[in-house]
Amino acid sequence: MSRSEGRRRRGGGRAGATARRGGAVIEQMPWQIPVNIDRPTEPLGPEGIQAIHEGAMRILEEIGVVFLNPEALAIFKQAGCRVEGDLVRMDRDFVMEMIGKAPSTFTITPRNPERALPIGGNHMLFGNVSSPPNYWDLELGKKVSGTREQCQDLLKLTQYFNCIHFAGGYPVEPVDLHASVRHLDVLYDKLTITDKVMHAYSLGAERVEDVMEMVKIAGGLSEKEFQAKPRMYTNINSTSPLKHDYPMIDGCLRLARRGQAIVVTPFTLAGAMAPVTMAGAVAQSIAESLCAIALFQYVAPGTPCVIGTFTSNVDMKSGAPAFGTPEYMRSTQMTGQMARFYGLPMRSSGVCTANVPDGQAMWETSNSLWASVQSGTNMVYHAAGWLEGGLIASPEKFIMDCEVLQHIQRYMQPATFATTTDDIAFGAIKEVGNEGHFFGIQHTQDRYTEAFYQPFLSDWRNYEAWEEAGAEWTAQRAHRVFKDITASFQEPAMDDTLRGELQEFVARRKEEGGAPTDF
Amino acid sequence: MSRSEGRRRRGGGRAGATARRGGAVIEQMPWQIPVNIDRPTEPLGPEGIQAIHEGAMRILEEIGVVFLNPEALAIFKQAGCRVEGDLVRMDRDFVMEMIGKAPSTFTITPRNPERALPIGGNHMLFGNVSSPPNYWDLELGKKVSGTREQCQDLLKLTQYFNCIHFAGGYPVEPVDLHASVRHLDVLYDKLTITDKVMHAYSLGAERVEDVMEMVKIAGGLSEKEFQAKPRMYTNINSTSPLKHDYPMIDGCLRLARRGQAIVVTPFTLAGAMAPVTMAGAVAQSIAESLCAIALFQYVAPGTPCVIGTFTSNVDMKSGAPAFGTPEYMRSTQMTGQMARFYGLPMRSSGVCTANVPDGQAMWETSNSLWASVQSGTNMVYHAAGWLEGGLIASPEKFIMDCEVLQHIQRYMQPATFATTTDDIAFGAIKEVGNEGHFFGIQHTQDRYTEAFYQPFLSDWRNYEAWEEAGAEWTAQRAHRVFKDITASFQEPAMDDTLRGELQEFVARRKEEGGAPTDF
Repeated sequence: MSRSEGRRRRGGGRAGATARRGGAVIEQMPWQIPVNIDRPTEPLGPEGIQAIHEGAMRILEEIGVVFLNPEALAIFKQAGCRVEGDLVRMDRDFVMEMIGKAPSTFTITPRNPERALPIGGNHMLFGNVSSPPNYWDLELGKKVSGTREQCQDLLKLTQYFNCIHFAGGYPVEPVDLHASVRHLDVLYDKLTITDKVMHAYSLGAERVEDVMEMVKIAGGLSEKEFQAKPRMYTNINSTSPLKHDYPMIDGCLRLARRGQAIVVTPFTLAGAMAPVTMAGAVAQSIAESLCAIALFQYVAPGTPCVIGTFTSNVDMKSGAPAFGTPEYMRSTQMTGQMARFYGLPMRSSGVCTANVPDGQAMWETSNSLWASVQSGTNMVYHAAGWLEGGLIASPEKFIMDCEVLQHIQRYMQPATFATTTDDIAFGAIKEVGNEGHFFGIQHTQDRYTEAFYQPFLSDWRNYEAWEEAGAEWTAQRAHRVFKDITASFQEPAMDDTLRGELQEFVARRKEEGGAPTDF
Repeated sequence: MSRSEGRRRRGGGRAGATARRGGAVIEQMPWQIPVNIDRPTEPLGPEGIQAIHEGAMRILEEIGVVFLNPEALAIFKQAGCRVEGDLVRMDRDFVMEMIGKAPSTFTITPRNPERALPIGGNHMLFGNVSSPPNYWDLELGKKVSGTREQCQDLLKLTQYFNCIHFAGGYPVEPVDLHASVRHLDVLYDKLTITDKVMHAYSLGAERVEDVMEMVKIAGGLSEKEFQAKPRMYTNINSTSPLKHDYPMIDGCLRLARRGQAIVVTPFTLAGAMAPVTMAGAVAQSIAESLCAIALFQYVAPGTPCVIGTFTSNVDMKSGAPAFGTPEYMRSTQMTGQMARFYGLPMRSSGVCTANVPDGQAMWETSNSLWASVQSGTNMVYHAAGWLEGGLIASPEKFIMDCEVLQHIQRYMQPATFATTTDDIAFGAIKEVGNEGHFFGIQHTQDRYTEAFYQPFLSDWRNYEAWEEAGAEWTAQRAHRVFKDITASFQEPAMDDTLRGELQEFVARRKEEGGAPTDF
């Protein structure tokens, strides 16, 4: 064990203590890696899977995908693909051979190794909302541009909640920070406020390299240690239809070559950037992600890759995107079937179209989260805090979503459907017989503290008690919880030397001018 | 075809036209019988099913169930069961033989035969909230005792929404009507305001007989026609643990002997009236329902019966019931497995603990409704309008739930996951290529009006447009829809002669004093 790994281990121990102290604000479920044992919901039969696969392969073979990245074009040419200008066509044999090199499971290890995440298989992990340019909370009562302080608050929630496993993109875009240095300040905040798995935006070489360097520093890792296993990941979107932009591919190539993980998530909005039919939109999405994953596997065989879905539909009255719809659910389930067909871990999202954290927000978000469960998703992006189709981040919504995530994570625990002799409880039923109740008996006494899910936000009091206590609707209660958590938040432990190195790095890179802003 | 059936048919035609005119307030999905093609979510393996079955059989064989109904006791004795006082023990051979006589599917035909409901198989049907003693709406802003006017308003919603298939119990208990005549007035309202499948409370012989008589009159049916097939149903609860009350069994026997349908729904709250373990609570619930269904099959073999579940857990901090919990979802799924094991149609519910139609209400209700889908439920009770664990009916919640029900019913349509050549849309993808969008192409133009679910309540506008339009949260929008629907509501057609007969019947029975109120 290297000296740096030892430092991290101690840090992790203190972080654990902090998390326990943090438990004073609310009683939450412990940190765990949820295992989804439900058989996925599979709308497609074998012919349906074959039809989508055939469609995706024909798209790659006959239509082709534009790569606005010269390096990628050169690599595809070298690999024997047909490259004309920036259009790449590739045979299914090549695609399938490359996809076969991608691992079906892998682990991402952040600076606190206790937060390591197994990606793939039956594991189901949840991340915070990422990238909204705007912020809304109940106190403001209006939509405003994101700031660093709001971003920090949302990062505190990301760290605080055990049901949130990874820190995705910026939980709100802090537009008060200049774009050239924004990534330095936010990554510093992310790496000090949280100790969870980290993400880098693929928005230019400097940003990607800076983030990798900061993850290395925060982890106290040598370059060799950094490259030895995935320590972080990036998530890219294609520019649908059938196009990959320069910076996205560039960032991924940089990560792939250093052994880091890549999530490829086309944004195929049926009726706009993709066919109006859900199966067509899924086929196009699959084609867009597979060709990129094939590229990364050719460059660095075994690169950990995740196939993402962000297929939804537009509102045909307005052309605006809609989320958490029936079509969204089915496309997520279909993509899950395709991900298993290709042997790749899968990413989907917790999303809604609603503008405020109200009833609509929660049925749309519930729809999308249950679709994640039903599809066998491994990474759930935007699982907490998302509003207005991703244009708004909201702390109240974050808190409310965490309650739903806890419901889902409790739902997955085998205790909820165990059928041992103790669970069937014939003796207890006989003891109570045809009169009385089960409150007082030993069978209940032995089990009641752990028997059922205990919410932290749901109000289970009757109307009169709820009214007496202030008659607060869910969003109001969530606001209070948000204020309490951020007010008493304690950062996870970090070695002072590493913190100093991080600060020096940020200062030096700022002096150098940060990153270009012409992306 | 009898004269009366002809009258009904014409009535149905006019009702159809009314429904179309009613479409002016909102654009809703057409009346349809949803088919749930999803493979159920099955937490139990074969051993788990066997363990619950074994538990239920041992309960019936060794512990027994109390029947506070002398007639039932005599029948059980005649059937060879062991009857001691009011405690009945029965062998599994008897239970399984009787259960085997129950049909796995049947149809209930209301006065408008176009509203006939196939129960069982893959059919999934939804009913209104039933039996809350209280009412809440946004205009009142407080919880009040139910009135006939409120009950009528909720019946208008029951009739208006095509996603609601049957009129369950009273959508709110009109406590301004004396209990002796309440059933007469409300049934008159139900039979004239709606033309959907009707329910009778099993709360005393007079009430049950009156409701059967009124259903006969409204349908223009002879007694022979009435008995020829199910025209209505009752739903009973056991008095857990392991007890059936007099009036519930009495009512069921009256329906069974006249060929009407019976839903048996134990209310086994884990940790209170049932074991603290979910599998134990389910085993007890199964035992309580099977023994009653066995009785009805012995009396009238082939009686259409539905096995209901209302198994949830208490809040172990307060002892109060909680709904839409992870444990509720799993017990619903487990009961679905058991219902298929016994070959019986199944009933579950759309429920929540929340006191107002807010975020919590919708995630709890979404949880319970998705559990209904996942469990293969055939009849979903309380699917619209339920709050405070069933103590409050709310029109805003009704409207919000109907939006979720429409989502679910659209989700079930095969169009959402079809994979024909047209759906894969290779030609469309090729046409658009790597530039442009799909809005304008023929493939989109040919399909866009029907391509996606169109909500009536969800607001899919962006924040600015939503704010400009009044910044209404979901419950406020729902309130407006409620007022619009009830203001412009038109009753379904009913033959004047039949209406007159109904009125005469109500008047006569009121003169006779109605029903005893000592239940």
